[in-house]
Amino acid sequence: MLDIKTEFTTNPKNKPAVEALGFGQYFTDHMFIVEYTEGKGWHDARIIPYQPIQIDPSAMVFHYGQAVFEGLKAYKTVDGKVLLFRPDRNFARLNNSNERMVIPAIDEAFALEALKQLVTIDREWVPDAPGTSLYIRPFIIGTEANLGVHPSKSYKFIIIMSPSGSYYKEGINPVKIMVEQKYVRAVAGGTGEAKTAGNYASALKGQEIATAEGYSQTLWLDGKEKKYVEEVGSMNIFFKINGKVVTPALNGSILPGITRDSMIQVLKSKNIPVEERRITIDEVVEANKNGTLEEVFGTGTAAVISPVGELKYLDEKIIINDGKIGEVSQMLYDTLTGIQNGTIEDTFGWTIKL
Amino acid sequence: MLDIKTEFTTNPKNKPAVEALGFGQYFTDHMFIVEYTEGKGWHDARIIPYQPIQIDPSAMVFHYGQAVFEGLKAYKTVDGKVLLFRPDRNFARLNNSNERMVIPAIDEAFALEALKQLVTIDREWVPDAPGTSLYIRPFIIGTEANLGVHPSKSYKFIIIMSPSGSYYKEGINPVKIMVEQKYVRAVAGGTGEAKTAGNYASALKGQEIATAEGYSQTLWLDGKEKKYVEEVGSMNIFFKINGKVVTPALNGSILPGITRDSMIQVLKSKNIPVEERRITIDEVVEANKNGTLEEVFGTGTAAVISPVGELKYLDEKIIINDGKIGEVSQMLYDTLTGIQNGTIEDTFGWTIKL
Repeated sequence: MLDIKTEFTTNPKNKPAVEALGFGQYFTDHMFIVEYTEGKGWHDARIIPYQPIQIDPSAMVFHYGQAVFEGLKAYKTVDGKVLLFRPDRNFARLNNSNERMVIPAIDEAFALEALKQLVTIDREWVPDAPGTSLYIRPFIIGTEANLGVHPSKSYKFIIIMSPSGSYYKEGINPVKIMVEQKYVRAVAGGTGEAKTAGNYASALKGQEIATAEGYSQTLWLDGKEKKYVEEVGSMNIFFKINGKVVTPALNGSILPGITRDSMIQVLKSKNIPVEERRITIDEVVEANKNGTLEEVFGTGTAAVISPVGELKYLDEKIIINDGKIGEVSQMLYDTLTGIQNGTIEDTFGWTIKL
Repeated sequence: MLDIKTEFTTNPKNKPAVEALGFGQYFTDHMFIVEYTEGKGWHDARIIPYQPIQIDPSAMVFHYGQAVFEGLKAYKTVDGKVLLFRPDRNFARLNNSNERMVIPAIDEAFALEALKQLVTIDREWVPDAPGTSLYIRPFIIGTEANLGVHPSKSYKFIIIMSPSGSYYKEGINPVKIMVEQKYVRAVAGGTGEAKTAGNYASALKGQEIATAEGYSQTLWLDGKEKKYVEEVGSMNIFFKINGKVVTPALNGSILPGITRDSMIQVLKSKNIPVEERRITIDEVVEANKNGTLEEVFGTGTAAVISPVGELKYLDEKIIINDGKIGEVSQMLYDTLTGIQNGTIEDTFGWTIKL
């Protein structure tokens, strides 16, 4: 395993007040970085003070978009311990993204070791107020200074960390979402199941349209037939219909969410029926008409659960569960956040204590 | 119009030998850069010595891929003048890409003025050997240091330039291309018609597969039905069938190539029938079977014309025009490169003399 050199900051930053944290705007004192060079592999692993990177303007990431990332969190428990939630799954998924985007694989065990060292060094940055956490962003970018269209011959794998505030400061507030008709996020054979930069850039236009109409997220349909539900905003989506929970099956254009997978396992452990299958937007509309659409929610690392209170499709506006969070959504939120902050026993073996 | 400050290099580089140029690996002495800040617009335009940029590791381009670019060339004429080819079209297209990727528009007239000043300063870098040119790469990247998924609140618009060697050192050599079956480049409603980084990252996988099978480019079919021909590699594609030239119509998922448009205009001026319409891969295979598939070629800024000598579709290998460049392909190549290097009169008004 590579050796990790550490250079400590001589100029630690002031930590922002917990109320000011928000999401992804402050960064901790240190970052991890390791270089890849063709013929040499990954080398020069180091933890250094958080700082700008120097990069050639012809670096391939700026032009041809070879960029993949992950998002996970570290949580502080009531007794002051720091927990990581399923970090092995993030690094496994990062390698799946690498494969699709023709980026060399990382050593997952090494990445986890690097992450543990980095979080340990900056452990004072893990906030402890309810609902807060340390958001962790591992990412890889192609850095070769060359304008030919080919896979980059050099890369940087970097981990940065950002203390983040409670997603739900004033209780869980269901969101209004809108089915996008014109733009698509992904298609079979495209990059939808990779966590790659281009997917997010592509989705901004739909977000802009939704925002202009007073909705907070886009509900994406499949790119081929515009018939099957895929994702909501940058979250996976679940529907509770007539007592059963249904989520779109992983089909190559949907991101295999780690929160999604955790929710499915929690549902199974509680003997709540859950199905991974194709679901059309028409089935959702029909379920609403016949009174069986009980709950709708998105899942992701940032919000854990984001209940949907209203869904707009064409000219139809569907109000779900009177615009309030449903029972199953609340149970899933409480269970997962309980495991993450150590107040509920982790019978799944998902957390790693530092 | 913004003022452009100029800082000249005090340390000019040695110019590489013309035989060593290749594509996109050497850069000139200067670069243009202008900043965008929300609420302030574009500001601080300057031409400075070519140098790395300093950028925060949380800059949005690394994570959410807001990046668009253009590619064009400056040519040296036999009498030592420098010509730009249709640069106004590049900046108009850049703004179309900006619109799709939710990036603020640039002032096209200002961008052209900046480009002219930059090329004039580095005019000694425009090579004059036959077939060589100065490749110009304008690009825009989102630079806000923030991990929230939203359009960046700050951007850099940069122009870098790279002397490039002759694409065809030993005469025009037709390429072998392969129809990609599994992966897709773009789909209607996606970002295919924008010149954005993610499209190129997405296409690397198909290129990898083609290369492994001994083909030099991927022929992309539409993402919806995998039936209609879209592009080849990162070029537009043309077929000459039974005396008529056919190219896929711009449908939202195909890049509106400036070379493509120029070829269509040249064909029309020579009274060669040309059609922009949907064309299926089956029509191409059928034309080959009945002996009417006369020529196939890609068009783009780098190669101008890239004749296709062999096309693989499923288990079928189609040899086109005995693997040699066709008459119309050669005429188009000679006409366009003649206009570009000033040896053929530019009756279209495409070139700008510096």
